Amino acid sequence: MNYSLRSILLALPFLPVLVTRGSAETGYDAWLRYPAIQEKSVRDLYTQLSPTIVVLENSPVIDAAQSELIRGLRGMLGRIPRVEHDLVPGDIVVLGTLAAAQRAFRNFSLPDDLTADGYWLKTTILDDRHILLITAPNDRGVLYGTFALLRKMALHQRIDSLDEKQNPYAPIRWVNQWDNLDGSIERGYAGRSIFFEGGNVLPDLTRAGDYARLLASIGINSCTVNNVNASPRMLASDFLPQLARIAAVFRPWGVKLSISVDFTSPKAIGGLSTFDPLDPSVEKWWRDKADEIYRAIPDLAGFVLKADSEGRAGPSVYGRTHADAANVLARALKPHAGIVIYRGFVYNHHLDWRNLKNDRARAAYDNFHALDGAFDDNAVVQIKHGPIDFQAREPVSPLIAGLQKTSETLELQITQEYTGQQRHLCYLVPMWKEVLDFDLGAQNRSTPVKEIVAGKTFHRPVGGFVGVANVGRDANWLGYDLAMANLYGFGRLAWDPNLAIRDITAEWTRMTFGNDAQVVDTVMNLELESWHVYERYTGPLGLGTLTDILHSHYGPGIETAERNGWGQWIRADHEGIGMDRTVATGTGYIGQYAERVAHEYESLSTTPDNLLLFMHHVPYTYVLHSGESVIQYVYDSHYAGAAEAEKFPEWWQTLQRRIDDQRYEAILKRLTYQAGHAIVWRDAICNWFFRESGIPDAQNRVGHYPNRTEAESMQLSGYAVQDVDPSEDASGGKAIACSASAKSCTASFLFQGEPGWYNLHVQYFDLNGGGARFQIFVNDQQLDQWVADLLLPSNKINADSSTRHTIHGVALRPGDRIRIEGAPDGEDRAALDYVEIARQDYYSQ
Amino acid sequence: MNYSLRSILLALPFLPVLVTRGSAETGYDAWLRYPAIQEKSVRDLYTQLSPTIVVLENSPVIDAAQSELIRGLRGMLGRIPRVEHDLVPGDIVVLGTLAAAQRAFRNFSLPDDLTADGYWLKTTILDDRHILLITAPNDRGVLYGTFALLRKMALHQRIDSLDEKQNPYAPIRWVNQWDNLDGSIERGYAGRSIFFEGGNVLPDLTRAGDYARLLASIGINSCTVNNVNASPRMLASDFLPQLARIAAVFRPWGVKLSISVDFTSPKAIGGLSTFDPLDPSVEKWWRDKADEIYRAIPDLAGFVLKADSEGRAGPSVYGRTHADAANVLARALKPHAGIVIYRGFVYNHHLDWRNLKNDRARAAYDNFHALDGAFDDNAVVQIKHGPIDFQAREPVSPLIAGLQKTSETLELQITQEYTGQQRHLCYLVPMWKEVLDFDLGAQNRSTPVKEIVAGKTFHRPVGGFVGVANVGRDANWLGYDLAMANLYGFGRLAWDPNLAIRDITAEWTRMTFGNDAQVVDTVMNLELESWHVYERYTGPLGLGTLTDILHSHYGPGIETAERNGWGQWIRADHEGIGMDRTVATGTGYIGQYAERVAHEYESLSTTPDNLLLFMHHVPYTYVLHSGESVIQYVYDSHYAGAAEAEKFPEWWQTLQRRIDDQRYEAILKRLTYQAGHAIVWRDAICNWFFRESGIPDAQNRVGHYPNRTEAESMQLSGYAVQDVDPSEDASGGKAIACSASAKSCTASFLFQGEPGWYNLHVQYFDLNGGGARFQIFVNDQQLDQWVADLLLPSNKINADSSTRHTIHGVALRPGDRIRIEGAPDGEDRAALDYVEIARQDYYSQ
Repeated sequence: MNYSLRSILLALPFLPVLVTRGSAETGYDAWLRYPAIQEKSVRDLYTQLSPTIVVLENSPVIDAAQSELIRGLRGMLGRIPRVEHDLVPGDIVVLGTLAAAQRAFRNFSLPDDLTADGYWLKTTILDDRHILLITAPNDRGVLYGTFALLRKMALHQRIDSLDEKQNPYAPIRWVNQWDNLDGSIERGYAGRSIFFEGGNVLPDLTRAGDYARLLASIGINSCTVNNVNASPRMLASDFLPQLARIAAVFRPWGVKLSISVDFTSPKAIGGLSTFDPLDPSVEKWWRDKADEIYRAIPDLAGFVLKADSEGRAGPSVYGRTHADAANVLARALKPHAGIVIYRGFVYNHHLDWRNLKNDRARAAYDNFHALDGAFDDNAVVQIKHGPIDFQAREPVSPLIAGLQKTSETLELQITQEYTGQQRHLCYLVPMWKEVLDFDLGAQNRSTPVKEIVAGKTFHRPVGGFVGVANVGRDANWLGYDLAMANLYGFGRLAWDPNLAIRDITAEWTRMTFGNDAQVVDTVMNLELESWHVYERYTGPLGLGTLTDILHSHYGPGIETAERNGWGQWIRADHEGIGMDRTVATGTGYIGQYAERVAHEYESLSTTPDNLLLFMHHVPYTYVLHSGESVIQYVYDSHYAGAAEAEKFPEWWQTLQRRIDDQRYEAILKRLTYQAGHAIVWRDAICNWFFRESGIPDAQNRVGHYPNRTEAESMQLSGYAVQDVDPSEDASGGKAIACSASAKSCTASFLFQGEPGWYNLHVQYFDLNGGGARFQIFVNDQQLDQWVADLLLPSNKINADSSTRHTIHGVALRPGDRIRIEGAPDGEDRAALDYVEIARQDYYSQ
Repeated sequence: MNYSLRSILLALPFLPVLVTRGSAETGYDAWLRYPAIQEKSVRDLYTQLSPTIVVLENSPVIDAAQSELIRGLRGMLGRIPRVEHDLVPGDIVVLGTLAAAQRAFRNFSLPDDLTADGYWLKTTILDDRHILLITAPNDRGVLYGTFALLRKMALHQRIDSLDEKQNPYAPIRWVNQWDNLDGSIERGYAGRSIFFEGGNVLPDLTRAGDYARLLASIGINSCTVNNVNASPRMLASDFLPQLARIAAVFRPWGVKLSISVDFTSPKAIGGLSTFDPLDPSVEKWWRDKADEIYRAIPDLAGFVLKADSEGRAGPSVYGRTHADAANVLARALKPHAGIVIYRGFVYNHHLDWRNLKNDRARAAYDNFHALDGAFDDNAVVQIKHGPIDFQAREPVSPLIAGLQKTSETLELQITQEYTGQQRHLCYLVPMWKEVLDFDLGAQNRSTPVKEIVAGKTFHRPVGGFVGVANVGRDANWLGYDLAMANLYGFGRLAWDPNLAIRDITAEWTRMTFGNDAQVVDTVMNLELESWHVYERYTGPLGLGTLTDILHSHYGPGIETAERNGWGQWIRADHEGIGMDRTVATGTGYIGQYAERVAHEYESLSTTPDNLLLFMHHVPYTYVLHSGESVIQYVYDSHYAGAAEAEKFPEWWQTLQRRIDDQRYEAILKRLTYQAGHAIVWRDAICNWFFRESGIPDAQNRVGHYPNRTEAESMQLSGYAVQDVDPSEDASGGKAIACSASAKSCTASFLFQGEPGWYNLHVQYFDLNGGGARFQIFVNDQQLDQWVADLLLPSNKINADSSTRHTIHGVALRPGDRIRIEGAPDGEDRAALDYVEIARQDYYSQ
C-alpha cells in the first residue's frame, strides 16, 4: 500500500459494512431498506447510472454520505459503484460541498441561495460527460442530498434530469428522548434505552449510531438523549467522556448531541450552596461547565431545561424568572454557538378544582407571556402544540402567538403517550399538519403556527421543531412498525411543513413496505384513517383523550380527570359537560388568543364541534352543527370508531405475502389487539355517559349486549365475582377472578342459540403481574388455550388490562356447555369479563 | 361436570392443543401445515362439511385421529367441529373401526377386503343424513384414513363423493434412526438426537411425539430409535423405563418403538461368559430379556441387529451363522409378535485390493445366499438397495432375488450420506422408484424388487421397507426443508410403491409450500431434476459418488476409493477405468443376478451407460451408447451438472413472496451454496481425469479458467502458499493460508479487464475449526465481508471445505487492485483458492 492510499484509509473514521439483506425484515432498517428493484422497467431507469462516485473531500459526514450511497445502490440495483477522489474520466456521480465543487468545476455556475443543511441535486453534461452532482453549503447538506437521491430511487422516480434545490424550513429540527440513565424511558413503549443502562452509557452504541442514520435521513440535526426530568449526573465531569462517545457515533450523520440538564446542578454536583441564576458563582459555574463540555464535545447543540414544572426545582426557588434561568445557561453556551431550549410546559398541578375560574390550559401563556423579550437570542422556549398535554385533540397553544420577541420551538410528541402507546395505530401527521397550518391571526394578519415557530413571522434568529421520540431497544425502534410513520413524518414536516400529508405518507409507505399498489393503498388508508378512528373511540368533541391521566395514560379513565389538582377537568355532571373557557363566563382562556381566533372560540355557534367541550360547558342535549345531540354523538362516534378499528386487521390481511412475513405477523397482532381494545373503549365511555346523563342511546346499543354472557352470571368454581373500579371498565361493572388460594378456576354457561358456526370472543384481563393461562372448552372438547402475556400497562382488573381473545369458527348447538378454565400466575388472577358469541362469516373468518 | 363426562376426560390420554398458526414458517410442521384456504372457489368445496364429528370409540390412536382432524379443519377452514360420541342428529363425520361402525350402522354394508392399517373413506346418505365415514380394520387405519382425508383437502380436492379403499403394500414400513445414546447421530446432518442426550432419553419428548405424527401421516408404523451400531445399554433393565417413555409418545400415532441391539449383550450386560447364540444360557437370556421388555413396552415392534459388520462382533466369533444369530432373537420375540430385522450389510473391510477377483459388491449375496431358508419366519433380512452403500447410483442388490425362502426388507437411505448430506438438493424418489420397479427376473419371470421385498413374489409372511431417516433437533427436522421430500416420498412408496413419482412429488410440494402454480412447478422441477444433476457433477457412469469414502462421505475424494481394504475400488489408471465384474474375466459379481439381468450386464453392448464402469473396465476412449467417449462424457456431464445446479437458486428466486420468507431464505442459502460446491466437484473430478488420462477436453474447458486468478499467484502478505492434497481439491493444486502466527493476511492482484460491472467469485475454504473472517476491497474501498461459519464436514483445506462467496455488481476498471484480507480464527486459517471475475448481467445480477 502506498503512502497516499494509507493516509486516505487512516483518515476514514469508519467504513460501514455493506451486507446484502435477505427478505426477512425486523423493521430495524425502517424506511432505509433499499430492497432490490425487481421490475425491469424500473431498473431501466437506472441502467446508465455511473459506476464511479467521485468524492471531492473527506469528512466523517461526507464519508457517511458515500457509504450510504453505495449501500443504497448496492441494495436497490445490485451494483457497487467505485469511489474515487479525483476527477477520473467518464460519467461520474459527484459528492462534495459547494466549495469543493467549485474547485473541481471552475467554470460551472453554482447556486448562491442555499442555506445551511440545504442541498442541490443536479444532472448536467460537463466536458462531454454526464455528471450527477450532490452538493451543499455544508457537509450535512451533502448527506441530506444523498438521502434525497436514494429516496427518489426507492420511490422508483427518474433521476436522469435533476435540478432540485432544497433548504430546510427552520434550523431547529431536534428530537428529545426521555431516557433515564438507569436505562428506563419515561413514556417509552419499545424496550429500554439505546443510550443508557445502570447509570452509564452503553458499551455498544451501534444502535445509537443507526438511530442517528435514521434521523439524518429525515433531516433531524440534533438528538437530546436524556429525559427532560434530568439527572444531575449528566453534567458530572467523570460522565463527560461517556457522553462524548454518544456524540462520536452521532457525528458522521450530522446529528449533534444535546442534553437535558438539571437546574440544581450547581448545587447538586457543583458544590455551591445555591443554584440562584443571578448569583455570580452560579453563572460562573455554568460558564465553566459549558467550557468543559465543549472541550469534550465541540459540536454539542445545546441544553434542554425543564424547570419549575411537575415538581422539578427551578428559578422560583429564588424568586427568579424563567428568563433568568434560561439566560444563565444561554450565556454559558453562547461562546460555543450552543443554544438552550427552555420548556414552556410549566403549570401548577395542585390547582383547586372547586374554583371554576382555575384553568391549567392558561398556564403556559400566563407563565411566559409577560417574559416576552426577556430571553437571550440563543434561549428558545419550547412550546407543546396544545395547552394541555398531547391529547387526542387540543386547540393550538395560544402561547405560540403570545411570544413575539422570543425564539420558539414547537414540541410535538412522536411517542404516543396519550394516543395508544404504539399498541394502537394513531398516525399523527394529519394532526400535526392541522397544528402547523393553524392561523393564529396575530397582529391581525395571517400567522400560521409553522411560520411563527420557525422564526419567520416575528423575525427571530432561531426556531423550529422538536419531536419527543422515545425509541427503544425493540428491533423496530418504536415497538410497532406502523408507528414509525410518526417519526418519519415529524422529520419531513420539520424539514418542510408545507409538504402534503399524502406525499409524506406515500413516501414512508413505499420506502417501508415497497411499491406494490395494493400495499401502498392499504397502508396509507390505515395510517390516514387512524387518528380520526382513535379520536372517535376515545375522547371526541375536544374532551381530551378521556384516558386515565393519573397512572397509565392508556385506557379509558374518564373520571381521573376530575376533582384533582392536575387540571384536566371535563366538568361533567348529570346535566352537561365541558370546560367553560370563555371570557364572558368562563376561565378566560379564550382571551389568550388573538382577536379572530378568540372570537371564533368564544361563541358556541362558531366553535367547531371537535373542540366544543374544550371551550364550552353545554347540556348533553345540546345540538351540534352536525345536527346530533352531544350525547348521541358520543354514542355514535364510539360505535363508529370501534367498527372502523375492527376493519383494520381485515384490511391488513389482504397484504399477506405482499410484504415480508415478520412485519406482516407483528402488525396483524397489534391491529387485532387494537380492534379488541377499541371495544373496551367504546363500552367504557358509552356506559359512563349513559350512567351520568341517564339518556339512552337512540339506537339502543349502549347497555344492551344480546350475545354477551357476563362472567359474573356464569357457573363458577374457584372464581369469585368482584366489582371493578371504575365500574365502566368492565361489562356490567363486575369481573371474576381466581380467589387467592385457587390454582385453577372454572366458569361455564350453556349456549342457547341456533346450531351453527360461531366466533367466540373472550374478554379477559391481562395483568402485568404474571402470565395467567386460559383454556376454553365446549363440553369435553378443548377449543383453544392462550397465555395472558401482553405486558399491558396495568396490574389491576381494569380497562388498561381488558383484552379480547377470539376463537373463530366454533360449531355450537343449543345446550352446549361452554367452559373456561383459568390458571392464575402470581398477581395475574386469570380474570374474565364476558364471552360474546357471534355468527361466523365463513369467508372472512 | 357429570360423571360420564369426567370419565371421558380422564380416559383421554392427551389433548393436543389447537393453535392457529401465523404465516412465519420454520419447517417444523413439514407437510402437515394446514394453512388457511384463501380461495373462495376452494372454500366452497368444503362449505357443507358437517360441524359434528362422531367418534365411535376411544383409544389413544383414535383420539389422535380426532385431534388431527380438528387441527386440520381448523387450520384450513377456520372452523372447529364438535366431537360427539353418540349418533347425534344431522350430518356427521364418523371416525371408528369397522367393528364400531358396524355396531353404529347395523344395516350398512362394510367392506371385507381391508387389511391391517388399511382404511375406507366413504360418503353416503343414511337415514336422510350425509355421512362421511373414516373407518378401518384397526385404529391405526382410522388414523391413516384421517390423514388421507386431510391430504385431499390440502391438495384442494373434492371430498363430497368419496369411496376410497386403501391397503398398505407391505406390513414393514419402518424408519431407522442412527442416534447414539450420547445424543450424537451417525450420518445425521440436522442437529443432535431428538431422543437421547448424555446416555439418557431426553426429559422432553415433545419432538419425538411430533416426529411420530409426521411418520404416521405417511403410513410409517415403526421407528427404530437408536444406531444399528448399538450400545448394550439399550437392553439394560434400568434403561427400559426410559425407552418406555419414547414408546408412550409414539403410541398415539400408531408408531411402534423398535430398537437396535448389540449382539454381545448377554455377555456385555447380562453377566454371561458367552454370547454364543446356540448356548442355552444365551438363548434363555434373550428370552427373559424380551419378556422383560414387553412387560414395559407391550407393543414393541422388534429388534434390529447389525452383527459381523464393520467391526461389530457377531455370530462368527463362535463359528455360528447369521441365521443362528437372527433366530435366537426371533424366538425370544415370537411370543410377543415381535420381529428381528437382521442387517445384510455384512462385508470384509480388509479386502486385499491387489486381488482383481476380490469384490465387496459380492459380499451380501456371498454371505446370505447360502443361508436362505435357515431364518425363522419372524426373522427378516434387511438389504440395502445396492451392493455397495447408497452411492449416487448403483445397480440393484442381487441378494434381493437371492433369498427366496427368507423374509426381506429393503433398506433405503433418506439421510443423504453420499448424496450431499442435505446441503445439496438430491431428491431420491426417482432413484428409489427405479430400484423398486427393477425387474430382477428371478425364476425366469417378472419379479420386481418391490414385490420381492414385500413378500409377494415368494409368499413370505412378512416384508417391506426400511428408510434410514436421521432427523435431528433442527427445527425443520432434516436441516433442509427440500430434503423432507425424501422422508415423505419414502413413506408414500412404502405404502404404495406403485404411486407415480410426479404424484408423490406434487403431493409433498403442495402440502409443504401451497398450491400456487408457479411454486408447484418450480419446486417440482427442482426436486425432480436434482438427482440427475447431482449425479452429473459427482460420479457418473456407475462410478459411485466419487466422494471421500474414508472420512466425510461428502466432497470429491476420488482416490480414497482405491488401494485400501474398503473395496469401493474404481480401478482407474492412465489407460482406463472401471471394475470388471463380469463372470467371464472379472469378479463374477454379475453372476449373482438371475439369467436375464446377468446377461444384460455381462456384455458391454447391453450394459446401460449409467452403470458401465460399475460392471466393466474400459479405456477412457471407449465410446458410449450416447456416442461420446468415456472421458469426454465425464467432462461434459460435470460441466452440464454444475451449470444446472447454478440455475437452481435462480429458479428459486422466482418464488420470493410466493412462499414464506423464512423457508425462502433458508433454502436460497443452501441452493446458492450447492451451486458453488458443484463447481468444486466439477473441477476436482475433471482435473483428476485430465491428469490421469492425459486426454484434453474437446471443448477446452478443463484446466483453462481465463477469468480466474489463483490465490498462489497473488501478491501475498501474511499468507503462505501450500499444496493441497489431493491436488484436484484446489484450483491449480495449491491454496494460500494464513501462517500460524499471522493475525491478518492480505492477498491482492490487479484487474486487467475492460471497464464495467462484474461479479466477483471468491473461492475460499470454510474449515470447521473456527470462524475466519474475510474482507474484500477494490483499492481502498471495502466491498464486502463475511465469516466462514458454514460448519462443513472438514477441518482441512480440501474440497469438503471449499466454498464460493459471490459479490455482485462491482464496478471495475483496468488497473484496479483487488485485495482480500483474511483474519484467521483458531484452526480456520482464512484459506483462499482463487478469485474469478465475470461480467454482470444487470437484469439477473
